[in-house]
Amino acid sequence: MATLTSREEDYSKWYNELVTKADMAENSGVRGCMVIKPYGYAIWEKMQHQLDQMFKDTGHVNAYFPIFIPKSYLSKEADHVEGFAKECAVVTHYRLKNSPDGKGVVVDPEAKLEEELIVRPTSETIIWNTYKNWVKSHRDLPILVNQWANVVRWEMRTRLFLRTAEFLWQEGHTAHATRQEAVEEAERMLNVYTDFVENFMGIPVIQGVKSPAERFAGAEETYTIEAMMQDGKALQAGTSHFLGQNFAKAFDVKYQSKEGTQEYVWATSWGVSTRLIGALIMSHSDDHGLVLPPNIAPIQVVIVPIHKTDEQWEAIGKVADEIQNQLKNLGISVKYDNRTEYKPGWKFNEYELKGIPVRIAIGPKDLENHQVEIARRDTLEKHSAPLDNLAQHIQNLLKEIQQNIFDRAKIRRDSLITPVDTYEEFKKVLDEKGGFVSAHWDESMEVEEKIKAETKATIRCIPLNAKEEDGVCIYSGRPSKKRVLFARAY
Amino acid sequence: MATLTSREEDYSKWYNELVTKADMAENSGVRGCMVIKPYGYAIWEKMQHQLDQMFKDTGHVNAYFPIFIPKSYLSKEADHVEGFAKECAVVTHYRLKNSPDGKGVVVDPEAKLEEELIVRPTSETIIWNTYKNWVKSHRDLPILVNQWANVVRWEMRTRLFLRTAEFLWQEGHTAHATRQEAVEEAERMLNVYTDFVENFMGIPVIQGVKSPAERFAGAEETYTIEAMMQDGKALQAGTSHFLGQNFAKAFDVKYQSKEGTQEYVWATSWGVSTRLIGALIMSHSDDHGLVLPPNIAPIQVVIVPIHKTDEQWEAIGKVADEIQNQLKNLGISVKYDNRTEYKPGWKFNEYELKGIPVRIAIGPKDLENHQVEIARRDTLEKHSAPLDNLAQHIQNLLKEIQQNIFDRAKIRRDSLITPVDTYEEFKKVLDEKGGFVSAHWDESMEVEEKIKAETKATIRCIPLNAKEEDGVCIYSGRPSKKRVLFARAY
Repeated sequence: MATLTSREEDYSKWYNELVTKADMAENSGVRGCMVIKPYGYAIWEKMQHQLDQMFKDTGHVNAYFPIFIPKSYLSKEADHVEGFAKECAVVTHYRLKNSPDGKGVVVDPEAKLEEELIVRPTSETIIWNTYKNWVKSHRDLPILVNQWANVVRWEMRTRLFLRTAEFLWQEGHTAHATRQEAVEEAERMLNVYTDFVENFMGIPVIQGVKSPAERFAGAEETYTIEAMMQDGKALQAGTSHFLGQNFAKAFDVKYQSKEGTQEYVWATSWGVSTRLIGALIMSHSDDHGLVLPPNIAPIQVVIVPIHKTDEQWEAIGKVADEIQNQLKNLGISVKYDNRTEYKPGWKFNEYELKGIPVRIAIGPKDLENHQVEIARRDTLEKHSAPLDNLAQHIQNLLKEIQQNIFDRAKIRRDSLITPVDTYEEFKKVLDEKGGFVSAHWDESMEVEEKIKAETKATIRCIPLNAKEEDGVCIYSGRPSKKRVLFARAY
Repeated sequence: MATLTSREEDYSKWYNELVTKADMAENSGVRGCMVIKPYGYAIWEKMQHQLDQMFKDTGHVNAYFPIFIPKSYLSKEADHVEGFAKECAVVTHYRLKNSPDGKGVVVDPEAKLEEELIVRPTSETIIWNTYKNWVKSHRDLPILVNQWANVVRWEMRTRLFLRTAEFLWQEGHTAHATRQEAVEEAERMLNVYTDFVENFMGIPVIQGVKSPAERFAGAEETYTIEAMMQDGKALQAGTSHFLGQNFAKAFDVKYQSKEGTQEYVWATSWGVSTRLIGALIMSHSDDHGLVLPPNIAPIQVVIVPIHKTDEQWEAIGKVADEIQNQLKNLGISVKYDNRTEYKPGWKFNEYELKGIPVRIAIGPKDLENHQVEIARRDTLEKHSAPLDNLAQHIQNLLKEIQQNIFDRAKIRRDSLITPVDTYEEFKKVLDEKGGFVSAHWDESMEVEEKIKAETKATIRCIPLNAKEEDGVCIYSGRPSKKRVLFARAY
């Protein structure tokens, strides 16, 4: 039986144990790279399916670009190379040969590449090098392309889902005729992400823009959605970048306008990754294991039979079949666990660990009373429900659970936003309570850096809905017009 | 207007032009790597969707394993390293730094990896290194896992879709308690591939096994489906490998049997790739462009309006909306091309080039007569059809087209199987007719190699349904019990 370290005892250990014991992911033999196990991958597939639909509904199409980026491409956009060239996987050779000592294989020095290739950390450069050939006239715009891909960033300190050398993600790359269109696109995708993360993953987020120091390397504006984990640390859940004309200029991508002039193209890019699975875990789960919002659960309902005699087994099986059919007709995913090598108690624990939103148990007494026992994963509460209209009852219950998981996370998140007016207060809140600290800042990079160095807190975002409010910077005392959100973050 | 080189004039040029002009793929700035453009990727998505469903229906789940394989893993299975270590992308460093001359970035010699990493050419080794931890008891078996991924093989002569350094594929990797179960799995997946390639992609295939020389590196048996292209060259459309206990022994993967003994696990692997899109093109397309089987077409029906007056435009629009709704209700994908900047003739050519199975044209005369004009892409025939029951008519037509495309390809393929009994005849058929040459072979690797060196023909497969038949090897004159299929191949 898998028992987890409690969150209170050791939050970080709890997280690692949960990820591996719930069969979501594990470390591989390759430093920093994870294996996403079938159950974890099934959650990613649900996320992909939903996001892909939302991208298509907003006019985007998918495409695929090379995994390798010639070294020289990275250097073309000055900020971009600063941000991404430093920690990356570099391909220098294209062949191995038998080792002269007869043991294994060695790199063939004859097969050295003329120019090194970088395994993509993000694809702006290879994509804009391609768009150069796709764009001639205003009629070729906009380009609304998304890519599902793996990317590699050579992280030194890795953590399953949250920070791995290789991860899976989607990256949208769009090209537009005007600044306004591109800004609108970046904002549209921020709203798509917000909709997805809040209504499917059940995680409340705050929309904002990054401070210049925290912007994506090469962006003019980075929009972000910021989430709050149970331990009071923030997590960036998705970003959408307005790239201005930076990449168009770096790769010389121009279009002929209706008036016949040559104009540089405007760009956006936006992405979310398997990191969101880390956010999912740390937003909702408890000491019993994962808690999955029904909208993202690969299995929404599990049925566990409890029997002593063969007659009971058969009778329960018939009822379970009927329930399964009814639920499937409503589009609810359900599993009947009729394995005999595991006991009901073992199964209960297993499905709690894996976060199945609703568990139905059927025993001989239930059959007599024409009912079943239902357990909600979110509250761990149990109740009996009649077989009549059971499917409808479950459907309503799943909606209720989805809402409850979000509401609960939102109440917690809201309680973890603390306005402060002095630097002393700021440090005290960070150390004793955690969460977002809402404070006035003088917009200087210098203050931002000092606060980060002294407290490890960064500006998570300047909220889009921040009120105009006269105040003074908690650090410099200089005047400020609005509060920004600081936090320690994953 | 895009006009293609004809197949007769230059088959290879026709292929390249078609791929780029139909907006399917193009070469990238990275040698040997392609960009899969949105239209080509939409076809891949249809293929993925269908295959994924078929894999799940046969009990498989998806997972994800690292893109990097430590060099030493490759060496663990002797045949495997011979087959795959030679042409591969080798990561040797994990950091770039600013160039001392101030221009761009260079590889940081300080950041050399202790052990080089290979970008996966296939994932048996990294996966079996993982399965080692997943398998302890017979209760952990079978493992039925599939992965959708990119892989890299450093090909020197590349061709869009057919042979690229990076390509997309799926690779199934299963683990079983017995030899029989593993063989059955390998055969089951060969049948799944056959079903998919014949009934969705409309390409007839021959099921067989590879000769030992052509087997997958590390397999005991390689099952294959072989297709025949229009130019008389064969193309391997999918393979399924029975790997015996080779990888289990290389990575020490054992399970405890019911009887308490420790046994090595039995394995299979199987894959199809974006190469199938090349097969799709070369099986069905003509000098006007792509011909897509309806089951795999991202857009099955396109509606093109033909008008002179605004009144006509509006009236046609209304009818088109109605047709669209009716088709969508039947699950048929349809596009109404109401762009005014392109003329109907231009659109006709465009959709022929892109292989849309059915084109509906609506002009003022059609409206008067309460009918539309329908053009089939497969035969280029046109006919009029009444608006009444049009959706049903189209649905039947799509089925007919799907069947016709397959039948046509099968008749051509069958005509390109030629039995020969002498080596002279063999060479003559290869040079003058092409296709599969069915001949007796003495099962020696020596003869196989000589024939390949002299004629460039390889043994494509030993057909599963080959009849027992006494004969003599066309090359050695030694006795043979059945015919095998030779061909020149992609």
